[in-house]
Amino acid sequence: MVKMVLIPLFFIAALLCSPSSDAADFCVGDLKGPTSPAGYSCKDPANVTVDDFVYSGLAAVGNTSNIIKASVAPAFAAQFPGLNGLGISIARLDLAPGGVIPFHTHPAGNEVLTVLQGTICAGFVDTANKVYLKTLKKGDIMIFPIGLLHFQVNGGGSLATAIVSFSSPSPGLQILDYVLFANDLPSLLVEKTTFLDDAQVKKLKGVLGGTN
Amino acid sequence: MVKMVLIPLFFIAALLCSPSSDAADFCVGDLKGPTSPAGYSCKDPANVTVDDFVYSGLAAVGNTSNIIKASVAPAFAAQFPGLNGLGISIARLDLAPGGVIPFHTHPAGNEVLTVLQGTICAGFVDTANKVYLKTLKKGDIMIFPIGLLHFQVNGGGSLATAIVSFSSPSPGLQILDYVLFANDLPSLLVEKTTFLDDAQVKKLKGVLGGTN
Amino acid sequence: MVKMVLIPLFFIAALLCSPSSDAADFCVGDLKGPTSPAGYSCKDPANVTVDDFVYSGLAAVGNTSNIIKASVAPAFAAQFPGLNGLGISIARLDLAPGGVIPFHTHPAGNEVLTVLQGTICAGFVDTANKVYLKTLKKGDIMIFPIGLLHFQVNGGGSLATAIVSFSSPSPGLQILDYVLFANDLPSLLVEKTTFLDDAQVKKLKGVLGGTN
Amino acid sequence: MVKMVLIPLFFIAALLCSPSSDAADFCVGDLKGPTSPAGYSCKDPANVTVDDFVYSGLAAVGNTSNIIKASVAPAFAAQFPGLNGLGISIARLDLAPGGVIPFHTHPAGNEVLTVLQGTICAGFVDTANKVYLKTLKKGDIMIFPIGLLHFQVNGGGSLATAIVSFSSPSPGLQILDYVLFANDLPSLLVEKTTFLDDAQVKKLKGVLGGTN
Amino acid sequence: MVKMVLIPLFFIAALLCSPSSDAADFCVGDLKGPTSPAGYSCKDPANVTVDDFVYSGLAAVGNTSNIIKASVAPAFAAQFPGLNGLGISIARLDLAPGGVIPFHTHPAGNEVLTVLQGTICAGFVDTANKVYLKTLKKGDIMIFPIGLLHFQVNGGGSLATAIVSFSSPSPGLQILDYVLFANDLPSLLVEKTTFLDDAQVKKLKGVLGGTN
Amino acid sequence: MVKMVLIPLFFIAALLCSPSSDAADFCVGDLKGPTSPAGYSCKDPANVTVDDFVYSGLAAVGNTSNIIKASVAPAFAAQFPGLNGLGISIARLDLAPGGVIPFHTHPAGNEVLTVLQGTICAGFVDTANKVYLKTLKKGDIMIFPIGLLHFQVNGGGSLATAIVSFSSPSPGLQILDYVLFANDLPSLLVEKTTFLDDAQVKKLKGVLGGTN
Repeated sequence: MVKMVLIPLFFIAALLCSPSSDAADFCVGDLKGPTSPAGYSCKDPANVTVDDFVYSGLAAVGNTSNIIKASVAPAFAAQFPGLNGLGISIARLDLAPGGVIPFHTHPAGNEVLTVLQGTICAGFVDTANKVYLKTLKKGDIMIFPIGLLHFQVNGGGSLATAIVSFSSPSPGLQILDYVLFANDLPSLLVEKTTFLDDAQVKKLKGVLGGTN
Repeated sequence: MVKMVLIPLFFIAALLCSPSSDAADFCVGDLKGPTSPAGYSCKDPANVTVDDFVYSGLAAVGNTSNIIKASVAPAFAAQFPGLNGLGISIARLDLAPGGVIPFHTHPAGNEVLTVLQGTICAGFVDTANKVYLKTLKKGDIMIFPIGLLHFQVNGGGSLATAIVSFSSPSPGLQILDYVLFANDLPSLLVEKTTFLDDAQVKKLKGVLGGTN
Repeated sequence: MVKMVLIPLFFIAALLCSPSSDAADFCVGDLKGPTSPAGYSCKDPANVTVDDFVYSGLAAVGNTSNIIKASVAPAFAAQFPGLNGLGISIARLDLAPGGVIPFHTHPAGNEVLTVLQGTICAGFVDTANKVYLKTLKKGDIMIFPIGLLHFQVNGGGSLATAIVSFSSPSPGLQILDYVLFANDLPSLLVEKTTFLDDAQVKKLKGVLGGTN
Repeated sequence: MVKMVLIPLFFIAALLCSPSSDAADFCVGDLKGPTSPAGYSCKDPANVTVDDFVYSGLAAVGNTSNIIKASVAPAFAAQFPGLNGLGISIARLDLAPGGVIPFHTHPAGNEVLTVLQGTICAGFVDTANKVYLKTLKKGDIMIFPIGLLHFQVNGGGSLATAIVSFSSPSPGLQILDYVLFANDLPSLLVEKTTFLDDAQVKKLKGVLGGTN
Repeated sequence: MVKMVLIPLFFIAALLCSPSSDAADFCVGDLKGPTSPAGYSCKDPANVTVDDFVYSGLAAVGNTSNIIKASVAPAFAAQFPGLNGLGISIARLDLAPGGVIPFHTHPAGNEVLTVLQGTICAGFVDTANKVYLKTLKKGDIMIFPIGLLHFQVNGGGSLATAIVSFSSPSPGLQILDYVLFANDLPSLLVEKTTFLDDAQVKKLKGVLGGTN
Repeated sequence: MVKMVLIPLFFIAALLCSPSSDAADFCVGDLKGPTSPAGYSCKDPANVTVDDFVYSGLAAVGNTSNIIKASVAPAFAAQFPGLNGLGISIARLDLAPGGVIPFHTHPAGNEVLTVLQGTICAGFVDTANKVYLKTLKKGDIMIFPIGLLHFQVNGGGSLATAIVSFSSPSPGLQILDYVLFANDLPSLLVEKTTFLDDAQVKKLKGVLGGTN
């Protein structure tokens, strides 16, 4: 009997909580729809399930059998579309002994790194050219402000792993060595705009596959 | 004669005020187009008229012949697409004597309530668990900060009406009782995460149509 | 007995809900502190009470015994500091028969007007120079996008009252006639930049107290 | 040999820098796609070239053989889609001797004007009705805050040119005289909302092509 | 010799990278200075060191010897001022077997949870009252959108630990049971606004220390 | 007579346009006050004059008699406090024949460069490692998206000058060579994180004054 009387309450909720207002709660990215400066289009809320909000791609240790002895696995909006529009994303870093994430920037997001195991020597440089350098151990958290050049190096003898959070669903990643040596930017321009020697530029262009 | 000389001025305006730049003025929501984290797509400005900016859906007193003796009528972007992208929306509250808008939050917008008639007892609780409680009379305005649990109760013997403004075109509405008792969230989980008794949970699940 | 066991729960809350984290909930304006591009400084949360969130200054009908037969009462952050940082504010409009709010803009906020009584003829012009004109009756809501010139006129024979909401705690108000005729901007410059006749400019400068 | 060992580094970059993550770098406007409150849709990054980021439309002196003896050439997102989503745009002003950019506002952007040649007398009025007036010479920079009425007049005997920057890709432009005299807003309403005389309104309506 | 010639380059950098421009890089919170809607005041950049960007407070397992068998350790701006203004923060969750983080919201931030060990059953409810429920294992990541009620329960027989990231330096935390039962909100109002029985409310008020 | 009747209109303006609401119009930076994540504190509006909105520091050709044969003169908020909070700033570039602005980023702002005289070869690299390279002549405008490494080189035989606009009052500037070679970052770390040879690093550290 009470149940029947309450039906009007359902009516209120139906009025206020129609599917079309779900967009205020979240906007799971539809990677095939049009994009805007605000991110990907929203997947139809009617088709969104809990699996759109869960990602398992960072569970495994990355393959560090490479020259930098390191692995980076991103869970940005492009990989984990549930993050679209939410102002946050995640990545996993694995650094074998001797491993290094070379100098790079994230043009669109602040970074917060949490060490899960091992030792990481990390650093960034600010626009006043001051160096911020720290050896981090398990449980330590370090901030790398948006757009500033920074790096991470395994500072110990065992695998180092970190979870990295960003203040953007698509923080971007620009690796310095790739900018300078792994594309078709003419060597002469690289040299003129970095003061590096011609031999140095050509050597690393050769190593990293750059042309011109 | 002067008129002819002024024609170049028209040309300047035509240059600067082409239809495609209207998007800077407003973005009337096209509810059928793709959505983005910034809201609905914009209706073609060429088809926008003054009626896109006028809404009459809040003019009538709501039906309060229901268990909560209250009515809520939203003019969010979903109902009033002219608000899309403008960072603001409106709703109307009617509370018959004894009426109540139960504990709820607006996850995406600050709320400002203006009492038009009657007496409303309203309250919210902040994250330091401090209670803010006030009996409002005609003409009083009260703020409910974004995301904080709050309620409104008719504090007098006659119909109370309020106009509510939000700092978002889609502020959302999450009614506490609905979260706990009106869906398929298992009773055991509700009890474990609220400390409510099993009998209480099952009673209200029964009343509000919840399952499991 | 159960109560004692629960004490650790208090500890968690104490940890997470310290007074200093209140700033995330709201930032009641301290009108005497330093201001920033984000608004006023925040009043110490320890001293905030429910009265910081309640304002009664718009309750009374405004005095319309003046040349424009109209009254505007703002509840912006400067009058109602609880709104500081919340992206929203309110004002009250009263227009006696024949009353008018002359052409004006709000440089920093979108406006939503709700008619509480009477009839209001309102209009705005967009940057493509299209006119949006409507006669509004009780309960009608109309949008005036940010920065666009607009006006309200009493369209009936009785007092008209409206509640106006803005998408900014400090939307600003720039009245066209004041810009042109009520300051020390030289008449010659006014004429050159508006094409108005010298006699017209000097007449209204005289009426509105402008100099030069 | 070293080159082969480095291949895994390429793999990392491929993982992180897939085309779909380019949206974080920029969002060149697709003027034919859907628009959102955040701007135009993004052109497919795969089709973006350096020419999307270069615009030559402001290179030539504008035609000032008109009644205001002035020319405005915008490079807003509608003309230069590479600016879409970037929070900035540019325009070029040319004022022949005696030229004037009449009173206007940019509803959606702050303006910064840099004088390239000649002398410009510029002014704006704030919401407290204070006048800010300055004669600018080559190399001077002046700020015009968002939404405030302002003007520029050639203050010398030779061509004056300025580069203008805005804090929005689509700042908009609303010319006061056009709002009042160049559309179908009834003369009676113009007079009632501006206090201008009927003869003055009708004269300028005639000159500027307004009706009603 | 080359070194001397390069001195002018230093001059350029000195010009552009003066200490006062450091504020663009970061704004380490000065918890004793005035706050604004944008967060804490910035510590003088001259006194900022790498230690302002490193936090070790989440390294240890939390004490779960309490009634909820759980522990939450935040690294919000109030605890880790280096995060001020950066749009991101972190927390650590430890749940002993049977442990639970009761229903709560973060009014000011989206949450992303990464399971470091153990099994966590987590859920949230959206404003359309749809339940999103998942049992997460080590390495799984789950999103909890801003302002929506959610919970985490240890779903296994061993300690479960998670790193939680938020899209705000001060996301806030509002625990449902505390709002209802641990303050001075009158029982009658709690009952009227939740439909809970008087006995249930008084029982939990007793347990959680609420009054009235 | 009319003038007296109009006095109430003054009253309205006084009500709405009190000095304390000026903060909505602008926030001229007080470089000595506390800073916040939103920028500098606002100078008291009562003391603001037109001179706070005018800057002449970019009028003169910069001194290019240095190793890079170039000069950069910023008008950021630190130099031109009127820009504080307005989301925009300006700078002037002068490049003598052979001059170069070496690889750098602006961590906090998009850049738009307008060539005023001469020829500039400019380029940037996106996060997908695509190179965008263009030779710009007088009147050409080029975009450099936020945070991406870019450079400018005089591409001709005469002085090249450009006005540069940024989408932030404090865009920042990080010069790559300074990060790598002009501070106390240990050579070993530079080498490990850039793959540069030890001799190259030490040579440039020597040239640019770096230590360690």
